[in-house]
Amino acid sequence: MKVDTARFLADLNDLRRIGAYKTGVHRPTYSAEDMESRRWLMARMEECGLDPAIDGIGNVIGRHRGPGPHLLAGSHIESQNQAGWLDGALGVVAALALARAGLPVDVAAWADEEGHYGGFLGSRSYIGELSEEEIDRLANRYHGKKLREALREAGLEGKPRLALEPGRHRAFLEMHIEQGTQLESAGLRIGVVTGIVAIWQWRIVIEGSQDHAGGTTMAERRDAGLTAVRLLAEIDRHFPTVCGPRSTWTCGRIALEPGAPSIIPGRAEILFQFRDVEEEVLRRMETRLRALIQESNRREKCPARLEPMALSRPALCDPALQSALAGAAEALAPGAWQHMPSGAGHDAQYLARHMPAAMLFVPSIGGISHHWSEDTKEEDLALGVEVLAKGAARYLAG
Amino acid sequence: MKVDTARFLADLNDLRRIGAYKTGVHRPTYSAEDMESRRWLMARMEECGLDPAIDGIGNVIGRHRGPGPHLLAGSHIESQNQAGWLDGALGVVAALALARAGLPVDVAAWADEEGHYGGFLGSRSYIGELSEEEIDRLANRYHGKKLREALREAGLEGKPRLALEPGRHRAFLEMHIEQGTQLESAGLRIGVVTGIVAIWQWRIVIEGSQDHAGGTTMAERRDAGLTAVRLLAEIDRHFPTVCGPRSTWTCGRIALEPGAPSIIPGRAEILFQFRDVEEEVLRRMETRLRALIQESNRREKCPARLEPMALSRPALCDPALQSALAGAAEALAPGAWQHMPSGAGHDAQYLARHMPAAMLFVPSIGGISHHWSEDTKEEDLALGVEVLAKGAARYLAG
Repeated sequence: MKVDTARFLADLNDLRRIGAYKTGVHRPTYSAEDMESRRWLMARMEECGLDPAIDGIGNVIGRHRGPGPHLLAGSHIESQNQAGWLDGALGVVAALALARAGLPVDVAAWADEEGHYGGFLGSRSYIGELSEEEIDRLANRYHGKKLREALREAGLEGKPRLALEPGRHRAFLEMHIEQGTQLESAGLRIGVVTGIVAIWQWRIVIEGSQDHAGGTTMAERRDAGLTAVRLLAEIDRHFPTVCGPRSTWTCGRIALEPGAPSIIPGRAEILFQFRDVEEEVLRRMETRLRALIQESNRREKCPARLEPMALSRPALCDPALQSALAGAAEALAPGAWQHMPSGAGHDAQYLARHMPAAMLFVPSIGGISHHWSEDTKEEDLALGVEVLAKGAARYLAG
Repeated sequence: MKVDTARFLADLNDLRRIGAYKTGVHRPTYSAEDMESRRWLMARMEECGLDPAIDGIGNVIGRHRGPGPHLLAGSHIESQNQAGWLDGALGVVAALALARAGLPVDVAAWADEEGHYGGFLGSRSYIGELSEEEIDRLANRYHGKKLREALREAGLEGKPRLALEPGRHRAFLEMHIEQGTQLESAGLRIGVVTGIVAIWQWRIVIEGSQDHAGGTTMAERRDAGLTAVRLLAEIDRHFPTVCGPRSTWTCGRIALEPGAPSIIPGRAEILFQFRDVEEEVLRRMETRLRALIQESNRREKCPARLEPMALSRPALCDPALQSALAGAAEALAPGAWQHMPSGAGHDAQYLARHMPAAMLFVPSIGGISHHWSEDTKEEDLALGVEVLAKGAARYLAG
């Protein structure tokens, strides 16, 4: 089994021409460019001896014609607006390269991972977690077009939706750019992903009294903004003692009302999230957050309350798959790889609910992602697909 | 000398009918209702034997006909939108009551203290700190009408502006509602104002790196929001050690950019102000603020810079005037008064630059101000005007 890395790079550059924008691409889900890229992919699948099909949500799946056991591999092919050429496309073209190398792989391009209409529509549809009611309801987040209308215009209306075939696939593999700088800063070329983090997103609401900043003494005040600052400072002090080695926590917004220079804030709203691949770590962080809020409510005159906005589940990568990929990485790039979590979401997190799944990362130059200047060195792209293929072969043989 | 408190209360209630809104009033500067109230005032001045005049900025001044030494007393007569019946009006009608009682008082209603067009236009014009260029430039903050046009519609175009007559006035007196709850909570009825606080308003700008909250480790981050929280927590910890007994400090806004749940803030902008009547205390607070920012810049990866937005001057009330008012308060309401600063701005702060000035506060029920439900007990209003008159007489005799 030998991967044709030159052909792989040529395919990537070929696909890059569809919806080209500067050095990146602009292929929003179901746009003319996106649909052209799906047709391009189906033609490539034919060439590799796969049976291509496009379904009612836009998923393109190329079915291996031979006997199993099979692997499923892929990613998404649409892009964010005026974004990079590799995000999504890399995983799809890498899966194609595996099939071309003779591995028993079904290749998938999952629709709308990027969330122009809903996020992860294709992978969720495939595992049975996208209802017709949700499709009725969804609309484009930028221009408001209804999803049903977009599907009709793309010629997908009325097509059946493809679904998971229990027992057909031994595992799902997704190659992706890192979208961060960890590999680059460590001088590494491959990341074997341990899991895709869960995001626990909270809203913290603090109620005080809106008063004039001139007429109200410090002792009389019920300053919701000050309570917010004290609480966030406590979180900053305490979270390092309960987090895991790769946890992250972020306060993205602090809104004080009414937000005027001379008015004591009567209300504060904080957006706060934390991420980890381990449920136990997430629960530990939640416990500490709740304790800090309780402590704040004992100490402060402005009560704070915690509202969960979205609590996703972490998706752990399969240990045997990780081990096969790690073995391949060590064979092809000794010492130049590491295990690492994925901080961002990927289609693999949905597939992982139904089969062993794993992901392989290659470095992002400067960590740039969701921008047209996103890039990765050709030798890293080539090494990545070789590790992916070797890992897949090891896993199937193991 | 005897103040007719019944007539004083009757005048206040008479004025309240002009532009009545619920239990408050709506008399924006230069509106029909505002101009009607100015004509009403000029008629009352005539009755008291004063020579009334209205000038090119809308100031109404009733000149005492007898020999000096004279006092100047008053406040403003326009209101905030849909606001209270006492703010401004009280000080004007109290000054009228002094003149009616035979005290040698010139009565003034300064235009646009409330800032519909600029803030303190009348008192600034009177002391020579309002240029024609500024009048050309100003427009209504709510509906954008140019000040020149408003003056023309109000029939004030081309009228000369009245100016301070050096040597004519021994002092300026302004009675006002407290606009806070300090008197009420302490069970007191009179506040002898020690000074009008200066407001030192700053913008603190912190520059970080906008990154994805999933892909960027805690160690790699340059989170401008986190630096802002740490700095504000340090201010909260340090300011009580440098402030004066009546200082206040307020963070009214924390804007994190872009303000999204999953994006590490690349920029933070803080609106921060402190207030005190003493320059020395203000300078001490500034010094500590600068030291905390310097310390933050040594410790943090995101640099913070301090930008002054507006640094006003405190206006200290004249000690002899304060002492005359305090003596009168102790005589009429023994033990039921206190010295206190004014946290809000008043016309007196501009007059104080050119003559001894003082202010007298009466309680605000529930501290409510700039709202139609603003109110003060009738007995407190009556006591206030009696203290003001007795204090004025004592000062003139002293």
